[in-house]
Amino acid sequence: MGTSSPRRDFPVVGMVGGGQLARMTQQAAIGLGQTLRVLAVAPDEPAPLVTPDVVPGHADLAGLEALAVGCDAVTFDHEGVPQEHLRALVAKGVAVRPHPDALIHAQDKLVMRRRLAAMGLPIPAFAEITSPEQVAEFGEAHGWPVVLKAARGGYDGRGVWFLRSADSADGTDSADGTSAGAPVRSLVAELLAAGTPLLVEEAVAMRRELAAQVARSPFGQAAAWPVVETVQEDGQCVQVLAPAPGLAEERALEAQGIALRIAHELDVTGLLAVELFETDAGLLINELAMRPHNSGHWTIEGARTSQFEQHLRAVLDYPLGTTTMTAPVVVMANVLGAEKTPEMTVDERIHHLFARFPEVKVHLYAKGERPLRKVGHVTVLGTDVAALAEVRRKAALAADWLSTGEWSDGWSVHSGADVAELGERA
Amino acid sequence: MGTSSPRRDFPVVGMVGGGQLARMTQQAAIGLGQTLRVLAVAPDEPAPLVTPDVVPGHADLAGLEALAVGCDAVTFDHEGVPQEHLRALVAKGVAVRPHPDALIHAQDKLVMRRRLAAMGLPIPAFAEITSPEQVAEFGEAHGWPVVLKAARGGYDGRGVWFLRSADSADGTDSADGTSAGAPVRSLVAELLAAGTPLLVEEAVAMRRELAAQVARSPFGQAAAWPVVETVQEDGQCVQVLAPAPGLAEERALEAQGIALRIAHELDVTGLLAVELFETDAGLLINELAMRPHNSGHWTIEGARTSQFEQHLRAVLDYPLGTTTMTAPVVVMANVLGAEKTPEMTVDERIHHLFARFPEVKVHLYAKGERPLRKVGHVTVLGTDVAALAEVRRKAALAADWLSTGEWSDGWSVHSGADVAELGERA
Repeated sequence: MGTSSPRRDFPVVGMVGGGQLARMTQQAAIGLGQTLRVLAVAPDEPAPLVTPDVVPGHADLAGLEALAVGCDAVTFDHEGVPQEHLRALVAKGVAVRPHPDALIHAQDKLVMRRRLAAMGLPIPAFAEITSPEQVAEFGEAHGWPVVLKAARGGYDGRGVWFLRSADSADGTDSADGTSAGAPVRSLVAELLAAGTPLLVEEAVAMRRELAAQVARSPFGQAAAWPVVETVQEDGQCVQVLAPAPGLAEERALEAQGIALRIAHELDVTGLLAVELFETDAGLLINELAMRPHNSGHWTIEGARTSQFEQHLRAVLDYPLGTTTMTAPVVVMANVLGAEKTPEMTVDERIHHLFARFPEVKVHLYAKGERPLRKVGHVTVLGTDVAALAEVRRKAALAADWLSTGEWSDGWSVHSGADVAELGERA
Repeated sequence: MGTSSPRRDFPVVGMVGGGQLARMTQQAAIGLGQTLRVLAVAPDEPAPLVTPDVVPGHADLAGLEALAVGCDAVTFDHEGVPQEHLRALVAKGVAVRPHPDALIHAQDKLVMRRRLAAMGLPIPAFAEITSPEQVAEFGEAHGWPVVLKAARGGYDGRGVWFLRSADSADGTDSADGTSAGAPVRSLVAELLAAGTPLLVEEAVAMRRELAAQVARSPFGQAAAWPVVETVQEDGQCVQVLAPAPGLAEERALEAQGIALRIAHELDVTGLLAVELFETDAGLLINELAMRPHNSGHWTIEGARTSQFEQHLRAVLDYPLGTTTMTAPVVVMANVLGAEKTPEMTVDERIHHLFARFPEVKVHLYAKGERPLRKVGHVTVLGTDVAALAEVRRKAALAADWLSTGEWSDGWSVHSGADVAELGERA
């Protein structure tokens, strides 16, 4: 079943990757009448579980070519796609969005840093690292601590090492426990020997992290959502606050302007998320992502056009949708896999969550639960910016409960409102 | 791919029918981490195009049994399911929601009328018809015109005949053009001979039609959305206005109370839509539907919990979600297949619609276009109840445009705002 249907003039969008971003894009594609075709490694990934049009395979040339057949546009759930394969698709006339010339800036932090520096945009001091000595030199020149990064392949804190001095390294690279505490020289030598391209940056004394998300179409139309605050824990985003609380309007406009300018000058098509540090001296650009992004999940309920719908509109060169908020304050909290698997099934946890918080919106990715893995998110809307603290508390409680099966405020079903009393009440 | 995934503790809901209601339920199921399995006749129906878990087949016993395997609950996209098969499923322990004892009231207008009459609820005068003479007798007793209805199987004006006198019939049954203008006697005799169970009702002098929608779980919890006005043309709903404009609070509460009482006394599980006539003398109940309903499509963007999410929550006995509106006024307009197929593809029409109205939300069911067939809907939100007329106008323009490829107000892309000027504007 699936692809033998008569022509209905609706577009087909191909997405490389079958994760939660593709899964949520499928919800938007359904509304627009479209077909979302995903290239997925395994049938039980979040997206192939919910779309019938699945091309099994990896992001190699064979997989990408199979995905592209009959697609009006090909786009991405993740950036782990070799440039040469994308260029081969472009050479065959496939509408790859964003174009590899743009996408490279979300794949390679050195290419990105150099380009943004050339544009005169605010970024941390940085240097390419090709020998261990260069890290010490950078630390001496810019002051310790410094941040060592793999130029390619890192995410959610992986591929990032916080270096306090030339003699020690606190690896936040959970995938490589051996590097923690190793002297800088041997860590860097080891990474370079493994072929990891490296850069080093000044460790920015920041107040908080922000994200500016925009969409841009091939026609050149662009639209920005309100700038959000992304609350981090252990290198991973745990909450997104929309709009960023207390952000001065001129700074919000500056952040949106940076994102719009990058989208324009790099000729980005589809979504662009710009992760920013807010410092006492102003904004600094941290990372770029050119796809739907965790910092934009709040838009599903919190904005008139979600990032997923907007991404589809942008890659198909449709006019973009209204980005205004649906409520004065919106908080998204990620549901992370717990250290200890809860006794209750996730289905039972959903029951209890809904009993306590009928207003919390739940998004679950149908992934197996592993510690710190993003398995879902919750969104809570507030009717008043003054309610931010309460909205954040509710979002955190809900996300923690879904994660651990424990109420972090000690709430018990027996102490709470009697659910039976709610029966039949409109 | 699809069903071989490792256990993740997420429920599977089976839905009988692969139409647009199942398609939109899939969007909600994705959010909740669930699997929606649909029983569909053809692979190119709206729902099998967007879910990988499809059981091909009709709503016969074999099809229903195949659907039910491994489902936590079985529910409905349409009511055309034989009672005896549903009872066979129940006997095997399948959680059929609603139970056939409740569903019969949405399948058989005579059973429904008798039950509501016994409950003392306000309904039009009616009588079962087993001979042509009874129609004339009813007309003499209650006054002409009267409305003849097939007790089973009608929808969207089909199976309904408006009788002006004993001598003439204006058939609104577009599937049966031969009945228009035929004398009542021969029409009724023909229908009875074909085995169509019939009833006749007084033709109600109404101000307008309303709909009250509620959800109810097996636990007995119920939740109501605001009462809406359903604007009809030629026996088919063209617009839904939420909340029903100018409806007195006590009348809204009365309508919600009627729906909640029916849900409770009939032991409905899942959604219940009660179609109502508002008359000078008060409310009269027209029809019941026990599934997601066209009058509730506005809830996707217009309420904190959509009817589709709520239906899944209800049939799985989850606590229900908040039903408050996301905007003071919401208008849904159905997109109907046009008499004349437009020259532009639907994809091109979407482009132009988005260029003119970036705030209109589009839902397309990926169906082939046939005259008056519901192929999609649009939703427009207003920030002020005073803006109702403008919101309605916009929804009607958008729906007409998607249907016909013509702007009913004569708007032209050249006279409108220059889209190029919107480029890069946030």
